[in-house]
Amino acid sequence: MTFVFNDPTEFADDALAGFVALYSDRLTAVPGGVVAHRRREPKVAVVIGGGSGHYPAFAGLVGPGLAAGAVVGNIFTSPSAAQVYSVAKAADEGRGVVLSFGNYAGDVMNFGIAAERLREEGIDVRIVLVTDDVASSADAEQRRGIAGDFAVFKVMGAAAADGLSLDEVELLGRTANDRTRSFGVAFSSSTMPGALEPLFAVPAGLMSIGLGIHGEPGVRDVGRLTADELARVLVDGVFGDLPASGPSRVAVVLNGLGATKYEELFVLWNAVSLLLQTAGHVAIGVEVGELVTSLDMGGCSLTVMWLDDGLERAWEADAYAPAFRKVAAGMRDLQPIEVGAAAAVGGTSAPKSSDASRALLPCLVAATAVVRDVLHINAAELGEIDAIAGDGDHGRGMVKGVDAAADILNNTASGGIAWNLRQAGREWAARAGGTSGVLWGAGLEAAADEIRDDRSHYGADSIVEAVEAFQLAIQQLGGAQPGDKTLVDALVPFAQVLRLGISRGDDLGVAWARAANIATNAAVLTASLSPKKGRARPLAERSIGSPDAGATSFALIVNAVGRHLETLEVHA
Amino acid sequence: MTFVFNDPTEFADDALAGFVALYSDRLTAVPGGVVAHRRREPKVAVVIGGGSGHYPAFAGLVGPGLAAGAVVGNIFTSPSAAQVYSVAKAADEGRGVVLSFGNYAGDVMNFGIAAERLREEGIDVRIVLVTDDVASSADAEQRRGIAGDFAVFKVMGAAAADGLSLDEVELLGRTANDRTRSFGVAFSSSTMPGALEPLFAVPAGLMSIGLGIHGEPGVRDVGRLTADELARVLVDGVFGDLPASGPSRVAVVLNGLGATKYEELFVLWNAVSLLLQTAGHVAIGVEVGELVTSLDMGGCSLTVMWLDDGLERAWEADAYAPAFRKVAAGMRDLQPIEVGAAAAVGGTSAPKSSDASRALLPCLVAATAVVRDVLHINAAELGEIDAIAGDGDHGRGMVKGVDAAADILNNTASGGIAWNLRQAGREWAARAGGTSGVLWGAGLEAAADEIRDDRSHYGADSIVEAVEAFQLAIQQLGGAQPGDKTLVDALVPFAQVLRLGISRGDDLGVAWARAANIATNAAVLTASLSPKKGRARPLAERSIGSPDAGATSFALIVNAVGRHLETLEVHA
Repeated sequence: MTFVFNDPTEFADDALAGFVALYSDRLTAVPGGVVAHRRREPKVAVVIGGGSGHYPAFAGLVGPGLAAGAVVGNIFTSPSAAQVYSVAKAADEGRGVVLSFGNYAGDVMNFGIAAERLREEGIDVRIVLVTDDVASSADAEQRRGIAGDFAVFKVMGAAAADGLSLDEVELLGRTANDRTRSFGVAFSSSTMPGALEPLFAVPAGLMSIGLGIHGEPGVRDVGRLTADELARVLVDGVFGDLPASGPSRVAVVLNGLGATKYEELFVLWNAVSLLLQTAGHVAIGVEVGELVTSLDMGGCSLTVMWLDDGLERAWEADAYAPAFRKVAAGMRDLQPIEVGAAAAVGGTSAPKSSDASRALLPCLVAATAVVRDVLHINAAELGEIDAIAGDGDHGRGMVKGVDAAADILNNTASGGIAWNLRQAGREWAARAGGTSGVLWGAGLEAAADEIRDDRSHYGADSIVEAVEAFQLAIQQLGGAQPGDKTLVDALVPFAQVLRLGISRGDDLGVAWARAANIATNAAVLTASLSPKKGRARPLAERSIGSPDAGATSFALIVNAVGRHLETLEVHA
Repeated sequence: MTFVFNDPTEFADDALAGFVALYSDRLTAVPGGVVAHRRREPKVAVVIGGGSGHYPAFAGLVGPGLAAGAVVGNIFTSPSAAQVYSVAKAADEGRGVVLSFGNYAGDVMNFGIAAERLREEGIDVRIVLVTDDVASSADAEQRRGIAGDFAVFKVMGAAAADGLSLDEVELLGRTANDRTRSFGVAFSSSTMPGALEPLFAVPAGLMSIGLGIHGEPGVRDVGRLTADELARVLVDGVFGDLPASGPSRVAVVLNGLGATKYEELFVLWNAVSLLLQTAGHVAIGVEVGELVTSLDMGGCSLTVMWLDDGLERAWEADAYAPAFRKVAAGMRDLQPIEVGAAAAVGGTSAPKSSDASRALLPCLVAATAVVRDVLHINAAELGEIDAIAGDGDHGRGMVKGVDAAADILNNTASGGIAWNLRQAGREWAARAGGTSGVLWGAGLEAAADEIRDDRSHYGADSIVEAVEAFQLAIQQLGGAQPGDKTLVDALVPFAQVLRLGISRGDDLGVAWARAANIATNAAVLTASLSPKKGRARPLAERSIGSPDAGATSFALIVNAVGRHLETLEVHA
């Protein structure tokens, strides 16, 4: 949804004014759009344009090595012929003008009328239409222009900067368009400034194949795809109906439409690049990011341009526009680091251990499996509790941590209980990250240090001491006291009640169960507290009434362990 | 919402793998993150990091002139101490390491533990915490780090590239953080990969002030603000509680959180820059865009860093990271164009006209006002019809056009009807843009040419001929025939029935009303047609069952004109 505007009908003009204010050191506003500052040697002027709402297209793509000017229409609306005329006239350096834009009826008319008028004044004007969207028509000449716009503009801008003639720039642009194909998918719509309803709706749970960048609905809806499946749809869409051809060198653009963000595009590129490699294609100068957007539409497209020598040189050339910068000198003289001695985590073999210590290892493995189960089951709820005043990552982090611990126990299970618990704690911290990860990891390592692998027997006292070491490590590292609304609020009474029970001779299982019960109550009681530590602190008020996620997960864990404690053969 | 993923729990790892595949020519993956390729001369290593989901922060900000390495945690989760250790160890070039990150408990712990471990191995490690978010705490040292991260990283990266010592880089970073303040606002939440519910909800119709970049809820909700009002909130938020100080040179970042797009940020910058200017501040090296995001969260923040000479030099220095590139050489030798002779639209004075022509001018003005009213009233509905298979801009475009026509008629109303109608048509085309804009503009100009300003009287025949000239111009320019599902489907029968009525002697008002009625029916009947022209063509199937927006608006216009035709004094 579009939230930032004054008068919605003036949105495009206001945006252009802000853009011009920002980049007045490198471009000039003219009626209808912008013209880039220029070098002394006259060049062919590549003038691009179309509706607003597609930034970086079109105004973000003017500058050395890219377009000489951009005509800026209203949101999703072709600029007028008068605007095109004005910008092209100002951009002309006496060597002729190429007008280039996506194939939409309004643009074709307005740029066409302007071209006629400019020709009447003796300016040599060529038109290079971009028709890359294979989903929009079976007839290649009828196709819309989408993110392939960028590829065609880029090579023409490079050719013009290189001093080529109007004929040569036009020919390169036509060749580029003939060799450029895009295929896209939409996940969610965009909303015009001031509108309350989106332009269209992608049905819930579906993805819309073949979207247009103006929010035109797709031509086919499919169920949600994984990133790998989506990569296949995009690659098949671009290469699909081509006659079988061998491996090729291809320029590639993986374009986000606005709300489909960088991390998602990287996940997708991971899959797309593998498919291209498998097919033997060599991807050159890959661009993954937002180049032709559609306000905050969710979706993306894959563009491929089959390169020849001239196109590859132009595609790889320097450019310096507000929204696209590629400067070979920026990477000059760089050398990769040597990664020979990357920090190894784990990998050491287990130290000597007693029979009693090794005998307890299955209990640790079983207890970890139980904790893993309870955290998986409760991960979503822990995330929700955490999201009330925190960042919602607690459930996910605990699951990451316990999975890491369980994995290493299942894979390396040799040696004694302490060494294995230490390995598990390290893996937990390494893989879970976050506050809870580092605290649990440090706590488990401290408990392991207390337990030791060299004892001839392990009694209930050993367990209590390990729990107390766990508590001490967590309080020292995190600095939290009871009442601060952290896991310490459940941990401290748990440790106290456990110690009390064992001291008075209770069976470990009985004492643990009572302590776990106390931990549950303590965790529930944190709802009345105001947080003093962690991310929840700035949002103290919102937190009151909800329990602390860390205390809650602690209580879940000790209760689950308690239910399985009878499997432990404790040599009291 | 996050749509692109395979296993949601592996999202951050998959994203990092794709990122590394993409930029393997300039950085190297190490356990826990990435390390940038380096130049021969050893430099201080600035190592940044934090959770994933904030791209360009953190991995997108490594490279010459910026960070030497980035530690990459899970989504919105601190990386582990082991990850920090691994990346910092690999990034160290023997001149020491600065660890820099936003102030969150998990990051503070994990980076702190790693720093201890690195120091034990003899590596000189400093920590520069970023605490720029003024909304997060009254106590400056307790504040979170948000987009100010970028400003602090940038100046330290420049200082390191410049060969400064560890002490100097650390000092510059601390100075930068002391002088950097940010203030943000959220419009909509983000959703973790695989989650069905957003992390939090901004209440409908409200904006949430003081958001955190992990989706932590804001500290105060306010009603929707205009861009101008929002600019004031952000500027007041950043400058608010500072002791009154004079004009200053400030580095500025206007940061989008993911779904608040470039055009919106430009609109906002337009307002913010004015406020800064008015207060006498000089904004240096302004960055408007996405630097520290939060998946696809809607919202933005304003960051200001008060510059001294050292900070300004470092802020303006070259950098070449995957997601931030600033290269002074890219703009070398550029000169602005001379805009002396910008193409003038209008401005000529009215030619000689007959009394009869001038007498009709008030009728044109009144009719235009009527058309304006009917288009404003129906703009939303026309947009909805257009959105079914088009781009939803028809209502907005028609309103822009008629407003432009009405404005020029109200402002210049001198001369005869034809000259004024021609001016109105030109303005309509110039300001409306798009297909409908150019067609209506060309049609009105053709009608004006037919009417002429030199007649001694204007009869009903003149009107019919003007309508036919309008029709001819539109069909020639657009190339549409009846049945193609365009405005021609209403226009052709309208013109035919009007001609028929006048030929058989009907009063103009009667003939027009009948023709307008036919146009209404014809527009309704376009619902049965499949589009052959325009943007709707690729979506022909979806269009069946809905009328054409252009035919519908034409019918609305001729009906409205018909209801006011009696005010025309036609000299038959």
